[in-house]
Amino acid sequence: MADILHRIGVEGSTPQAVYEAITTMDGLSGWWAEKTTGSTEVGGVVEFRFRPGGFDMQVVELEPGSHVRWLVVDGPAEWVGTHVDWRLRQDGDFTIVLFRHEGWREPVEFMSHCSTKWATYLLSLKQLLETGTGAPDPRDLQISDWH
Amino acid sequence: MADILHRIGVEGSTPQAVYEAITTMDGLSGWWAEKTTGSTEVGGVVEFRFRPGGFDMQVVELEPGSHVRWLVVDGPAEWVGTHVDWRLRQDGDFTIVLFRHEGWREPVEFMSHCSTKWATYLLSLKQLLETGTGAPDPRDLQISDWH
Repeated sequence: MADILHRIGVEGSTPQAVYEAITTMDGLSGWWAEKTTGSTEVGGVVEFRFRPGGFDMQVVELEPGSHVRWLVVDGPAEWVGTHVDWRLRQDGDFTIVLFRHEGWREPVEFMSHCSTKWATYLLSLKQLLETGTGAPDPRDLQISDWH
Repeated sequence: MADILHRIGVEGSTPQAVYEAITTMDGLSGWWAEKTTGSTEVGGVVEFRFRPGGFDMQVVELEPGSHVRWLVVDGPAEWVGTHVDWRLRQDGDFTIVLFRHEGWREPVEFMSHCSTKWATYLLSLKQLLETGTGAPDPRDLQISDWH
């Protein structure tokens, strides 16, 4: 098993505001994929659609202001069965976001791509909260021939 | 053991040009740390100095245009003994860079930070090669309270 790990700090924000950006349609479509639909309640499934394809995430844990966990239930074969995990806390002026995309069966080249791409989306989340404007698909940063 | 993985594609470049950007002082100081000194020959040590600290990397493998491998010989305790590995190849109009920072003993929070920060420096490398101007320390993107 292999995991993608990231950490960002959102300046002048709060764990509650970051939590809302990852648990509401308005929030998610503002930094990750403009085409986001579904239900963000525990047990619900959120459908994210990008130009190259999409992912369906089931919400498996919600602790307001501190923890969100998704299970990938549809999408690329390498993603299905993996978990996306978010931990939030406040350190001084920064809301710290600890991100994990856990449980990849093999460290394939697509995992390397997703690791870099996740970093750009996390920076889009930071930008959304700090400036009011993120860079979700289809306005996201292109990092290679793959997206 | 845990690894940081990334993948970028540099448009309109060549494996040789990317190789030069990671094996010469001019290249390295153009995307990673302006304060870079030392020797980039096999067996040599390159010293990278950032505002928060620095790393010393011994060059352990060089295959022109395809592979570069460094051993971290000084720096933060979590880094010493880990390897940084670069693989280059051409896919159509893109030079594909497969990056690994391998052999972390534990997936500590500092590893999550370094994973995101590496992504920003790889995008700085891409920008340097595509536009002529990178974003090395001290002009790098701040991602959190840590740097």
